[in-house]
Amino acid sequence: MYSLDLTKPDGRKMTLYGRRPFDSQTAAPSPFVEPLNASPHLRWHPLRGEWVTYAAYRQGRTFLPPPEYNPLGVTIDPAHPTEVPAGDWDVAVFDNRFPSLGGPSAEPPSLIVPTARAVGHCEVVVFTQNAGASLGVLPLAHIELLMQVWGERTARLAQRGDIAYVLPFENRGAEVGVTLHHPHGQIYAYPVVPPVPAGMQQEAQRYHADKGSGILQNLITAERSARVRMLYEGDHAVAFVPVCARYPYEVWVAPIEPVENFIQLTGEQRADLARALKTVLLKYDGLWQRPFPYLMAWYQAPTDGEAHPESHLHAEFYPPYRTWDRIKYLAGTEIAAGFFAMDALPEEKARELQQIEVTLE
Amino acid sequence: MYSLDLTKPDGRKMTLYGRRPFDSQTAAPSPFVEPLNASPHLRWHPLRGEWVTYAAYRQGRTFLPPPEYNPLGVTIDPAHPTEVPAGDWDVAVFDNRFPSLGGPSAEPPSLIVPTARAVGHCEVVVFTQNAGASLGVLPLAHIELLMQVWGERTARLAQRGDIAYVLPFENRGAEVGVTLHHPHGQIYAYPVVPPVPAGMQQEAQRYHADKGSGILQNLITAERSARVRMLYEGDHAVAFVPVCARYPYEVWVAPIEPVENFIQLTGEQRADLARALKTVLLKYDGLWQRPFPYLMAWYQAPTDGEAHPESHLHAEFYPPYRTWDRIKYLAGTEIAAGFFAMDALPEEKARELQQIEVTLE
Repeated sequence: MYSLDLTKPDGRKMTLYGRRPFDSQTAAPSPFVEPLNASPHLRWHPLRGEWVTYAAYRQGRTFLPPPEYNPLGVTIDPAHPTEVPAGDWDVAVFDNRFPSLGGPSAEPPSLIVPTARAVGHCEVVVFTQNAGASLGVLPLAHIELLMQVWGERTARLAQRGDIAYVLPFENRGAEVGVTLHHPHGQIYAYPVVPPVPAGMQQEAQRYHADKGSGILQNLITAERSARVRMLYEGDHAVAFVPVCARYPYEVWVAPIEPVENFIQLTGEQRADLARALKTVLLKYDGLWQRPFPYLMAWYQAPTDGEAHPESHLHAEFYPPYRTWDRIKYLAGTEIAAGFFAMDALPEEKARELQQIEVTLE
Repeated sequence: MYSLDLTKPDGRKMTLYGRRPFDSQTAAPSPFVEPLNASPHLRWHPLRGEWVTYAAYRQGRTFLPPPEYNPLGVTIDPAHPTEVPAGDWDVAVFDNRFPSLGGPSAEPPSLIVPTARAVGHCEVVVFTQNAGASLGVLPLAHIELLMQVWGERTARLAQRGDIAYVLPFENRGAEVGVTLHHPHGQIYAYPVVPPVPAGMQQEAQRYHADKGSGILQNLITAERSARVRMLYEGDHAVAFVPVCARYPYEVWVAPIEPVENFIQLTGEQRADLARALKTVLLKYDGLWQRPFPYLMAWYQAPTDGEAHPESHLHAEFYPPYRTWDRIKYLAGTEIAAGFFAMDALPEEKARELQQIEVTLE
């Protein structure tokens, strides 16, 4: 994998990744001229015991975009710069112009609860130059390269020393609030381990201390034995509807053997994980013969410098639909109580997805 | 407050509440004839360390509803029974026909994770006979009566001995998935303290043990001193946008002095809490001169038979809008990480709501 580090005219950093060496003349464009002026801050939520981040953005736009302007498409007309240059790259990563964490340093306000600078980093990951593609239709080699990029970004962010957790994710579809349809994801780098991964780490640590093996590792073994909810089973990776799914079409994708993060994947594991991931994505889009919206989150070990033998890299997909025309709204019991109620069984939803044939290439 | 306990033809229980004695001839209707056949079960989610409930419903409908049929409107034509009878009642509570918890007992399936019967109870609370009303336009005396009902249901459910937590809530608006617009809420009674209230109890207990006072009590004192985010300040109750709001128009409503639950409210506290609640609801609907969608959840002390001096009854409102035409979608960082990101400051949103004048009657 080749990479090229660049700086945008507004000061934001960008890295291009590809399978061929780069033209060193490549310059990073930006639709924005003024330097980033967001200065997010954290406030402590005493009742929940967690941080919330606040970023009040000021407008920094310096031009009116033409119709059909795609900020994630390559720049063709320098008078209308996008976020990414033309050139022979496969994946591009750049600092989010509207970061919820990170950005210029500023003193947090003094309030009736503890506050802090919103240390951290928010990145946009453009999966491909092809605006009409999707993660699932990319060639396996391209998906493998993206996984290498996720690992490389995780390593970079971990090295900063002020990042406790790196979360690569993709929100896909208008149903989950996405307005840019160019295939892309995001990476959030947090100054603390956020509540959900923190809870999962705690469960995994307790289990690992108790049994000497991994909680997800053993669940994968059990899912493989039960066989009813499996969607992909390779030599090194699996995909399945988990027995305890909280969303009707929830799917998990993981290497079979625990690895802490994308950095630790071997080439063989990465290749099979790409096959597992692509299988899920093609099944999703095949189910109703239309783009299938979802939130995809990749859980890794914290980047706190400690060893995490209890951690097991995996993706969890949370699709918003419960049937082809019905959204599963998160309401009272899910949002207010954190207690999920499902009116479909994971076994039934797994069967629907199992029946969708896919071809990997 | 008067009440009348009834049983529907399909076996479900119903109670009518009102300010005048009931005609003992009143019978409880049901649009369903067959007894309830849902048998939900729980599955343990090992990675998150929490229960998930599964209820696969079979259709029990015995008639085709006429157009504009409102199952929460009073029964006018006995050939098309609704869920509630005609008569002089103010608030009606009945067993949910599609419960996520409770219902007929059945053995849980044997799976690769621990399972259990989904002990618990799900109730529908019809706020008024008037389909065109809303909680906010009900007279203060009616809202006070509803609060008494919430207390009475909490007491009943606590007495069963198998309920650890009672959550009254309202999902309002199509934006949060509500298809029935007749003013109503729900009550979920859980066999365990669910994750969100459990986390809040833990924080409150730690704080109370450490400081000898209540975490919300002290936050209310601080909000009253700061003054910038207050929406209502009475002798016994307050409403405010919390300094640590996770939703742009999040509002909390609470008695000033801690009480554990609706049962413990004095008449004076309940009257002022109704004024605080009505103020918020009228401000919400006044903001954009249209019904304002929200999730309203009332947090109480667990019903585990222990004293909970750390608990402090309060409502949290989570409205889905961030501006009049933009939804705040919960996406990657909120759903996957549990780390909330806000692009509006609570102080700004409080100012918008403060400017809406309301008249209480």
